[in-house]
Parts: sequence; C-alpha cells; structure tokens
Amino acid sequence: MPVGTRGTVKGLTPAQVRATGSDIILNNAFHLMLRPTDVRIAELGGVHKFMQWSRPILTDSGGYQAWSMADINTIDENGVIFKSIIDGSKIQMTPERSIEIQNNLGADIIMAFDDCPSSVEPQKQNLTRRRHALTTRDGSMTEAQHKNRLLQSLDRTTRWLERCDDAHQRKDTQSLFGIVQGGIDFDLRARSVEQVCNIDLPGYAIGGVAVGETPEKIAEVVKFTAKLLPEEKPRYLMGVGYERDIVAAVASGIDMFDCVLPTRNGRNAHAFTRKGPLNLRNACYSDDLGVIEDGCTCASCAAGNTRAYLRHLFKSKEMLAGTLLSIHNIHHFQSLMIDIRLAIEDNSWSALPERWPVLAIT
Amino acid sequence: MPVGTRGTVKGLTPAQVRATGSDIILNNAFHLMLRPTDVRIAELGGVHKFMQWSRPILTDSGGYQAWSMADINTIDENGVIFKSIIDGSKIQMTPERSIEIQNNLGADIIMAFDDCPSSVEPQKQNLTRRRHALTTRDGSMTEAQHKNRLLQSLDRTTRWLERCDDAHQRKDTQSLFGIVQGGIDFDLRARSVEQVCNIDLPGYAIGGVAVGETPEKIAEVVKFTAKLLPEEKPRYLMGVGYERDIVAAVASGIDMFDCVLPTRNGRNAHAFTRKGPLNLRNACYSDDLGVIEDGCTCASCAAGNTRAYLRHLFKSKEMLAGTLLSIHNIHHFQSLMIDIRLAIEDNSWSALPERWPVLAIT
Repeated sequence: MPVGTRGTVKGLTPAQVRATGSDIILNNAFHLMLRPTDVRIAELGGVHKFMQWSRPILTDSGGYQAWSMADINTIDENGVIFKSIIDGSKIQMTPERSIEIQNNLGADIIMAFDDCPSSVEPQKQNLTRRRHALTTRDGSMTEAQHKNRLLQSLDRTTRWLERCDDAHQRKDTQSLFGIVQGGIDFDLRARSVEQVCNIDLPGYAIGGVAVGETPEKIAEVVKFTAKLLPEEKPRYLMGVGYERDIVAAVASGIDMFDCVLPTRNGRNAHAFTRKGPLNLRNACYSDDLGVIEDGCTCASCAAGNTRAYLRHLFKSKEMLAGTLLSIHNIHHFQSLMIDIRLAIEDNSWSALPERWPVLAIT
Repeated sequence: MPVGTRGTVKGLTPAQVRATGSDIILNNAFHLMLRPTDVRIAELGGVHKFMQWSRPILTDSGGYQAWSMADINTIDENGVIFKSIIDGSKIQMTPERSIEIQNNLGADIIMAFDDCPSSVEPQKQNLTRRRHALTTRDGSMTEAQHKNRLLQSLDRTTRWLERCDDAHQRKDTQSLFGIVQGGIDFDLRARSVEQVCNIDLPGYAIGGVAVGETPEKIAEVVKFTAKLLPEEKPRYLMGVGYERDIVAAVASGIDMFDCVLPTRNGRNAHAFTRKGPLNLRNACYSDDLGVIEDGCTCASCAAGNTRAYLRHLFKSKEMLAGTLLSIHNIHHFQSLMIDIRLAIEDNSWSALPERWPVLAIT
C-alpha cells in the first residue's frame, strides 16, 4: 500500500497511483482528523469520494502518529491527550474516538487504536524515538523496567482493542484489524497474539517493528509472530519496508504491507531499482541518457525520462522530480509483490534474487 | 504557451500538459543555460528529448531574465555581464551567445536577445521593476530622459537583432523571431517596428508590455503596434496575460501568447474560471462539493476533484494541489483560445462574453 497520509499520495493523481499497479492505499486517520477533520470528510461523502480513489483504502488508527508526532500531555487507561500539530489545541484520542474517526472517514480496512511504546530499549533509541517511550525520557530505564512497560502496554492494547471492537459502528462495510505488539521479545509477542486473536476480527497486523531494529531482528520477530496468527485471515506487517524485509516477511506468512519509502525517498532522489538504490542527485548521472532503470515499465521510465533529466529536476528543486520518481518507486515495489506472488505460485523462491539482485545485497 | 522555465511545466508531466490542449510550450534559455547548461542539453540530444516533449518549443532569449533576475555588473554595446543566480560566477551574455545557447537547446522558435529597459516611467515603478531601468535606480529620471533611454535601447536592440540573425546557425530548423520594444510610446513603437521588420524573419514579437501597465494601456499599445507588423507572419505578444488582455490582443492581430499566470497562480490556489477567479484557500470552499468549475472538461475537474478537496490540499501544502489547479488553469486558457478561434471563423466576437463572463468584469 502506497501511503497517502493526508488524503493524497504526495504529488501523484489517483490515476498515476493506479498506473503503478496499486490496488489499495493507506491514509492516516491522525492527519485527516486534524485537517480537514473526519466529520467534514463524512459530510463530503467519505474519504474515497474526497480523494477520488474508488478502490480500497486502509486507515491507520492514529495511534502511532499520536505517539510519534504529537506533544503528549497525558496518557492513562482512558486514552491519550495531545497537542494538535495544527493549532496547539488539546485533543483527546481514545479507542472509541479513533474508531469514530475511522467510521467517519469510511475506509475499507480500519486499524485498532493501540498503546505504542518503543520496542527498542531506551538506551538504543535516538532522541526522536525516545519520545515514544514516555517514562524513559531520561534514558535510564533498565531492561527489566522496559520489559515491564511493554507488558503493561500489551495488556492495555488488548483492553483498548475490545473497546475499539465495541465502538465499531460499521462492521458491515469496514473491517477492523487488531494489532499485535510486543517489541522484539518473543514471550511478549506470543502473549500479545494470544490476547489479540482472542477477539474475532477480519484481520490482524503486526505493529511495533521497523522502528529502528536491524533487518535481521525484524525478520526474526516477524517470522516468530506471523506463524502464530490465523492463517485464513490477512496478516499485515505495518510500516515495512525494504525489499528483503518484504520478501522475508512474505516467506513468514505476511500478506499486506504499507510503507512510505517509495514516496518519501522518491521525493529525496532515492531511486529503488532491482540492482539496488541510486541517488539521482549524484553528478555521475548528469549526462546519463538511460532511464531510471533499464527495462522498467513504470510510467516515468516508459515515457523515456532520463537519469540526466531527473537529476536536473532534483537539482532545480522541481516538483516533477518527486512525482516521476515516486511513480517509479511505487511501481518498483508493486513489481516486487507481483514477482513474489509468482514465486509463491511456482514455488520458485530461489529464483527471485536473480530477477531482484538487490535481495542479495547485504 | 504554458511556461516551462527549467525544462518542466512545474508539477506536470508532458502527458498532463498535452492533455490540457497545449501544442507548444516555452522554455527559458536563461535558466537552462545556468543549469544543466545548454551544452549539456545539446549533448543529451536537445531540449525536446531532454524533457520528453515532442511537440514545438519556443525558447525565450534570456534577455528579459538577465535584466529582471540577475545582478547586472556591466552593460555596454557588446552585451551584459551578470552574476549567476546559481553560484555567483560572472556570466557574459551577448546576442551571439544567446543565439548559441538557443541553437544548443534546439527549440523550434528562438527569440532575439534584446535590450530591455522598463517601459514604465521610473517614478511609477516598484522596487523590483526599478532594477530593470539601471540608470534610474534613484528614481530621479525625467520623462524626457526616460524616453531618451528607451530610444537608445531601441537602436541597440536593432543592432543586436542583426547580430542575432548573423549568429544564427540553424535557420533550417529554428525560426528566429525579432522583438519590438518601445514601451508605451507610440512613436518609439513605430520606430522599433520599422527597424525590426526591416530584417526579414519568420516571425515578430511585441516585448516590453505587461510589465506593470494597466490593461487599458496594454490594449492601446498592442492595438497600435500589432497592425504595423507583417500580417502574413506570426505576431507574438510576450508575457500576456489575463483573459481580456488576450482577447483584445487577438482582436488587434496577435497570434501567439505565453504566460506564467495559469501555472504560477495555480500553485497559489488562484483558480481561473469563465466567471472570474476563485481563491481556493478561502474557507467558503471547505464543504464545496462542486468541481473547480462546473462543466469544465479539464483532467482535474473531469476526475471529480472538488473545491473542498483542492482547498484541503492547499491548506495542507500538498504538491498535488498545484498540479491539479495548474492543469485546470492551463486548460482554461487553451479553451479560451479555442473559443477565440471560433469567434474569428464565425465573426462572432460579440457572443464571446456570454460564454466568458470574466471578459466583462472590470
């Protein structure tokens, strides 16, 4: 799922998004609640009509964003009170309110509002990540204390999931997914899966990974957790990731992904290719008449846009730079997903790195 | 002609530009000379290939930009020396160099490099415009002195045009247009037409208007000047303009226009409609489920994008806002040109304001 945080995949029309091969996109309830507000979007006919995307949409619950972006005032069993990033006003977010927002937005898949402490130990967090941990601002928490915090968070997440499920008013048209937490601790992940899957829902997600761990650690946690989730329901790994993270996750049983990498990096001249990334700001591309990736069928490459032209657009800070490269990058990941589906059908996993040499890069 | 200053109509793919009904676009020799450089574009196969626009392109000579944007060090009979806006290095621009640049870029129509003093008297200029006048920085020039400056400029422009024509190496594939100057003084305009049209060229342009005059003054000068130009050759009014400026100019004999208004204003939430402009940042559009303009067939309106959505995108500073509105605005002006052509064919000028009420707004 390409990420369309504020009701737009940045710089792309819905037609351009669709042409990358994307079927479903992700919007953020947190951002849309603040502006233009979920109530307004409901009045305007829902988020599909609002942004003219007629295919499926998933909304993130706002939990992660409330934790990672906002100035949090208080957190308790009821929910979170934080300052609006728009006007500084105090906003209360609870499981009930998050579901109300997502009911108003009207996406096809909605996510549970959960407690999101950092899964990485505080000593290993950078300043931004540390903000997630709340009680660990001084970085002095012991491993045991950190595990205890995660344990409390898990149990609270389960109680909040029950409240989300109870509050959900549109079960006929919107599928609520629960989110498994537990950081990189297998015991906690198992405990979370048991609790979360005890509530019968249309799908389950693994949250709290790709927040600073190594690729190996991500793969380990996903491999352990995914197989505990019900096989007959979609399994969604939130916020992941790079090519080999995705391949490893699918091999472990994951069905769905979202990630800002194709678009965020695309706006920053980072081109994904099957052979590995390129930085299109580099001088070596000044006279390069090749397209971003030889043989690529994305709209940017198919139109013949050269690396030299892309470099010029990035150096000139032209909007079209981000648009063209985002198109290429989303298409790159959708092409990877197509090839992964073929590998599943043909049981030809071992042939995948031939077509995707980037998977072999360490 | 939509303006694609740096080899891109800002925020639009060539396919999106083409879908607005545009046949020909304008690039700026000044900007492309500085980055990625005209030599590089020549090596890469020319500006059409560079930006993947296979239809006609016109390049502005760089004269106006050198005068209006750069820190000018010296100006004499040979040309202008100014500081690069990229790295501050000294760059010499002469008629010969301007044509060399435009030969390197390879556009279908290239423009003469001319002397561009302000046509408005210094006392009436704002600070930015005053920079054009060079000798009038203190604003103390009398009307007679100003006219004398314009007279010198005219004669120099003619000498420079001869040098441009002599330097032009690709007359088989590139049409050089001369530029008539003379400000808002009819005597000077007549003198300039006589001198410029004395050189046999494929087309002629009127420069030095729309640099601060009233719409009435623009119409007067254009009406006087256009009828003096050879009827059998294209007459191009540079940098104009609003709807009624264009209609008045066509009625006076003008065939070609370029303007940044559709795109520059489009990026700033200014929507052109047949009934007049809208500012899509205004709160009154928050819940407006109408498209930008009812009945409009541009790609933005045809896709159903609402004013409420556009307002949200502008308030959220989303790239897509400028893209969608630029598409609409360029389409608006191309539709006006289509209706003007019909009015010429049917001699139905008087019916034009019915379909374009904006023409009646004073």
